Amino acid sequence: MTEFKSKIRTIEWVDTFSRMVDQTLFPYEFKYVDIKTGDDMFDAIKTMIVRGAPAIGIAGAHGVVLYAQELKNLQRDEFIKKLLEKADYMATSRPTAVNLMWAVEKQKEVIKNSNSDVNGIIEELKQNAIKLENEDIEINKKIGAYGAEVVPKGATILTHCNAGALATVGYGTALGVVRSAFANDPTIQVFADETRPRQQGARITTLELTMDGIPTTLITDGMCSYFMKKGMIDMVVTGADRIAANGDTANKIGTYTVAIAAKYHNIPFYIAAPLSTIDISIKSGDEIPIEERSHDEVTHINGKAICAEGVNIINPGFDVTPHELISGIITEKGILRPDYKKSIAEAFK
Amino acid sequence: MTEFKSKIRTIEWVDTFSRMVDQTLFPYEFKYVDIKTGDDMFDAIKTMIVRGAPAIGIAGAHGVVLYAQELKNLQRDEFIKKLLEKADYMATSRPTAVNLMWAVEKQKEVIKNSNSDVNGIIEELKQNAIKLENEDIEINKKIGAYGAEVVPKGATILTHCNAGALATVGYGTALGVVRSAFANDPTIQVFADETRPRQQGARITTLELTMDGIPTTLITDGMCSYFMKKGMIDMVVTGADRIAANGDTANKIGTYTVAIAAKYHNIPFYIAAPLSTIDISIKSGDEIPIEERSHDEVTHINGKAICAEGVNIINPGFDVTPHELISGIITEKGILRPDYKKSIAEAFK
Repeated sequence: MTEFKSKIRTIEWVDTFSRMVDQTLFPYEFKYVDIKTGDDMFDAIKTMIVRGAPAIGIAGAHGVVLYAQELKNLQRDEFIKKLLEKADYMATSRPTAVNLMWAVEKQKEVIKNSNSDVNGIIEELKQNAIKLENEDIEINKKIGAYGAEVVPKGATILTHCNAGALATVGYGTALGVVRSAFANDPTIQVFADETRPRQQGARITTLELTMDGIPTTLITDGMCSYFMKKGMIDMVVTGADRIAANGDTANKIGTYTVAIAAKYHNIPFYIAAPLSTIDISIKSGDEIPIEERSHDEVTHINGKAICAEGVNIINPGFDVTPHELISGIITEKGILRPDYKKSIAEAFK
Repeated sequence: MTEFKSKIRTIEWVDTFSRMVDQTLFPYEFKYVDIKTGDDMFDAIKTMIVRGAPAIGIAGAHGVVLYAQELKNLQRDEFIKKLLEKADYMATSRPTAVNLMWAVEKQKEVIKNSNSDVNGIIEELKQNAIKLENEDIEINKKIGAYGAEVVPKGATILTHCNAGALATVGYGTALGVVRSAFANDPTIQVFADETRPRQQGARITTLELTMDGIPTTLITDGMCSYFMKKGMIDMVVTGADRIAANGDTANKIGTYTVAIAAKYHNIPFYIAAPLSTIDISIKSGDEIPIEERSHDEVTHINGKAICAEGVNIINPGFDVTPHELISGIITEKGILRPDYKKSIAEAFK
């Protein structure tokens, strides 16, 4: 297997701060921004300067280090008490992606289990954040390798939203599968759904794939069935924001519609996600909280209204694809297949 | 039955020219433009100053009158020969909607069957255009009345693109059904798909429904399944650009995806269209030519790029919904039901 070399690093801990690509500038600029306080990190997550479930997780872990640095003059007990509160607050910056809660929890374990003084705890939190970063890339490469095995030769892969290098520390989950497949078969190509309202497919997926030299066609969200019927789509792979114990998967709004269309055309529909995305504490997708986002995302594009005044808006950020529409969940431990209740439980043993 | 009074008149013959709402200005302005030459009408259709299959038909009929006025100094035989050529040219301004060919054909029949001199033929063409306008509104009101019978009390109706007053001379086909239902049940409401790439749902449907006081919620195209699963959509009604003899229906790109989602959720999916939209000369949707439109429609919104450079684009303007996904075709002669081959043939007897 040839390994794919990606040019993209989304987020990285640098000495005393977090450096990340500012994703609100896409597709016009590819610019790094340094986040130096916990509150700025909270806002960076909330306003989607950083987005993508795994990248948000790392951002959350960085955020805990930033808060720790701000609290370093407190007595050790007071430091730990305040920092655990701040960590819990950081975990509320976005509600749907479970990776955020998971990564913050990993930092809380470091805090609770440490025998060091305040400076020692801060250092351990930094090291743990860097470890989580490296693990994220390693996990994505494993997901890519497992996923590449089910990509047909010369396949056109449809994806929705961005589960790429720019949704993770690097390499990507769904687009990690694309990268690993492309490294060994340069006839692979991608169809990217625009992904309204925030157009992550148009703004982010097309950017990172063209940066990495992978042929990409941009389509609007409603077009997927047209190309499926024409036999131009061989498989669908998307990321996930949270997966329930039965395989039901929350991902960017519109994913469920693509999954239904794939089923209708007998096209395999895969989720690619690290095991940290699976929330075994919830039985089904019905229990996943769906973030309701700002109405402006629907009514305005680039600051300009696209609809009449006085219209109602509902803007769910995510939808849940029921497990029966999912052909497999590609993880760092291999591809989980139905019955998901069993295969997920097995993966967590 | 209470009759609904709409405020909207899309296109109208005025003395020696065609007056139409300039639909490229939506949702910012509601402004009339006067089209005074045949070539200007060709461009108005091509650039979608006027759009919507039935409105395009009337625009084509007006265009023939405009060309006739320009040719009025020719000898009668030469006039007829040139005018028939110009009429055929006008019919090529857009390829998918059959109403355009149909309305131009109606004008060609006037030309061929007339015994009048040149001025007499021009007058007959004007009168025929006005007759087609009036018939369009009457037909839409009949479609509305038939359609209203299958709208459940308090229903939320999802529609895609704009098959409204602004897609016709007035009143609308799919939105004619909404208007007729709303006149007798003010608890009716509409969910409007944005309809990328050209956003007719956002720009046009929300505008005409709010102008007429009908409660409207704008959603992005990928959201339809989310709301269907939540039980928030009771039926889908869209227009049509061309219907084959077996009921396969070409309509704005994305319609087919909505129809698949409706089927998956057991929600009735209706087409509302005049019989002039049915092209009995073609057996199935496979024979309907699909217009490939400018790539800018996908890559740019309000003149600003939304994606990376170097990305590929395919931009089909329409898709074909196979007849097996269609619950009924609402026409001015009643609702056609499967088996469509039979019911359509019956309607054309």
